[in-house]
Amino acid sequence: MAQGNTHFTHLKREYIFPIIEKKLADLKTSYPKADILNLGIGDISLPLAPSIALAIQEATQEMTTTLYGYGPSQGYLFLREKIRLEYYPQLSSDEIFISDGINTDILAVLDLFHPSCSVAIPTPAYPAYLDANLIAGRKKKIIQMPCTESSGFVPEPPDQAVDIVYLCSPHNPTGVAMSKDQLKAFVIYAQKCGAILLYDNAYEAFITSPDIPKSIYEIPGAEEVAIEFRSFSKSAGFTGLRCSYHVLPKQVTALFGKKRTPLHSLWTKRQSIKFNGASYPIQKGAEATFSPQGKQETKKQVDCYQKQTQFLKEGLQKQGFTCFGGVDAPYIWWKTPNGLSSWEFFDRLLQSCHLITIPGCGFGEHGEGFIRVSGFTTQEIAKKALQQISTKLL
Amino acid sequence: MAQGNTHFTHLKREYIFPIIEKKLADLKTSYPKADILNLGIGDISLPLAPSIALAIQEATQEMTTTLYGYGPSQGYLFLREKIRLEYYPQLSSDEIFISDGINTDILAVLDLFHPSCSVAIPTPAYPAYLDANLIAGRKKKIIQMPCTESSGFVPEPPDQAVDIVYLCSPHNPTGVAMSKDQLKAFVIYAQKCGAILLYDNAYEAFITSPDIPKSIYEIPGAEEVAIEFRSFSKSAGFTGLRCSYHVLPKQVTALFGKKRTPLHSLWTKRQSIKFNGASYPIQKGAEATFSPQGKQETKKQVDCYQKQTQFLKEGLQKQGFTCFGGVDAPYIWWKTPNGLSSWEFFDRLLQSCHLITIPGCGFGEHGEGFIRVSGFTTQEIAKKALQQISTKLL
Repeated sequence: MAQGNTHFTHLKREYIFPIIEKKLADLKTSYPKADILNLGIGDISLPLAPSIALAIQEATQEMTTTLYGYGPSQGYLFLREKIRLEYYPQLSSDEIFISDGINTDILAVLDLFHPSCSVAIPTPAYPAYLDANLIAGRKKKIIQMPCTESSGFVPEPPDQAVDIVYLCSPHNPTGVAMSKDQLKAFVIYAQKCGAILLYDNAYEAFITSPDIPKSIYEIPGAEEVAIEFRSFSKSAGFTGLRCSYHVLPKQVTALFGKKRTPLHSLWTKRQSIKFNGASYPIQKGAEATFSPQGKQETKKQVDCYQKQTQFLKEGLQKQGFTCFGGVDAPYIWWKTPNGLSSWEFFDRLLQSCHLITIPGCGFGEHGEGFIRVSGFTTQEIAKKALQQISTKLL
Repeated sequence: MAQGNTHFTHLKREYIFPIIEKKLADLKTSYPKADILNLGIGDISLPLAPSIALAIQEATQEMTTTLYGYGPSQGYLFLREKIRLEYYPQLSSDEIFISDGINTDILAVLDLFHPSCSVAIPTPAYPAYLDANLIAGRKKKIIQMPCTESSGFVPEPPDQAVDIVYLCSPHNPTGVAMSKDQLKAFVIYAQKCGAILLYDNAYEAFITSPDIPKSIYEIPGAEEVAIEFRSFSKSAGFTGLRCSYHVLPKQVTALFGKKRTPLHSLWTKRQSIKFNGASYPIQKGAEATFSPQGKQETKKQVDCYQKQTQFLKEGLQKQGFTCFGGVDAPYIWWKTPNGLSSWEFFDRLLQSCHLITIPGCGFGEHGEGFIRVSGFTTQEIAKKALQQISTKLL
């Protein structure tokens, strides 16, 4: 009889979104007319830019007369080449893979590794890193890298040798980005112990500090040890459209038996077997983000999110709260006052200010004592939120 | 040091597409003006229907004013409900999951099963079933189900107990569909040994014989043992757009330790962790296939493919060739004449007729001695192909 994957039973974390939804529904029942302000989910709050929409529409129209069947599983060259020229001129376009979301990609690459590989994961972090590795049976192979106040919310390379290392910079949920030296330490670590770095660079567009690398490949040697993941989701409002890409340089190798073998050719094969490519009109939309108008429009959106993030952070700090992040990322990591737990503070903000945030504990144990505030919002909501906090928070 | 997934070394089959491309390039070098007729790849040959394109364009326009961020990872209810009403009125809409391609889905569900599970796979078959299971480390757990001339190209339930069974009906590449009784035998088999049937129903729209089930759930008891996979790719020309769906009834269980547990809740959790949903405008396009105009347009396309398939099959038979399939599927399974191998016959068709087909051996060992001819073509190409075969084939 078919045996299920018992590793699913290791998924024991608290799934916070259903709890938040329940609390929100209860509030709406008690206060049907409440003006609820959402600074919670890390989703866009501005509509799709016109030039991108037009490109998708034109590509769709094109499909009614010209035949576009299955596209290349690695993605269309027109898009890979645009990405390469913009961000990775030192690489070749076949080292770039188009897909439908970092979430898919950064977990799918686990296919490349032996089940025995150990994995280092920052905590707090985007919960899917941990969950996917638990499902894959790595419960006893996971090494946590705490991102705490005392270390400036930046992970440090583990003391022991680990095989796979997840990094996310600028980091979700803390909103803190890693400096060149901090990234360098991980590249040197990876070179030393033969680890592969999985570098989630979803928030690259939000980097403002001049000394923060915009790609892991700015670090010498990273091309031998790192796979970088990027997306159009947050930089160009693609969360509902689905388009991402990742970079796997041909120099990145892993051990197969006793032989170091490039992962690139295996990954190309894996994608051709398990993935039939991203949607053609969506790839055309992604291409449009590189046009002068597309760049202008998406920059305007990113600027707007950055402005709200800064406004919220300064506003909270002026009110005497302790906040981190929010400089190179659209997230503010708000330390709960008076030693309240994440959920206690979440509840107060919801009850007294009708404000939705995300309890930090939802991102792993070292997120306890914090909440995440998202700058993906409008000036109006940001203003109202600060006002509510200053006048109504108990 | 990171150990790679050594199971990749088990991928030893001949990758026929690069070989075909090489042979084609050589032909084009020798005969630069050759009029090459492609009856090879199983991809659409008609452009996107206008009402579907319009729905995608309108949804994209909508995104420029209304906010559509991350959609539900299970897919939008508007589409799940349309699918349910059309095909699965007996089920609930949360038993339907929207995704970006059967290829992704039918391999991703392997996450639900213990690595020790054995897998039965028809041969010949779509090669990804085998490849994905090899990558997952099931080399010694694979049981082949031969689909040969003597069994009417229909697989039979294995003699031994197997945990996971892939079925594809109407079948790619043989173009033969399974009857009610043949499917019933598999449902009874699955009930008896606790197997899960993974039912690839990509070509359902092409069924014309009245006695061929259009869904595995027409067989009593299938709702306890089968997961069904369908797509908009071939029925509505979505190969380049990417939209599929699968049905996992809540009654389907597997053994977790000693306890039978429904797979539905685990799969819902898995999708929420590893998948961020299909593209919103593409789901709106898929929804449009259920409108009266969408139905009319897609039926017209399917009718056209069916007509070409029938025309090609009858034409080949009139010329004295032995062909199978092609009644309930857009594929004809052409037995090579004079005991030629698949590649030998492929080469003759390419060299003398400038005709591209697919050598059957590319679909597994029991595909040797056949080639696949696709009805995804136009009347003009089908006519020319038959003419070339009758006048030029050596």
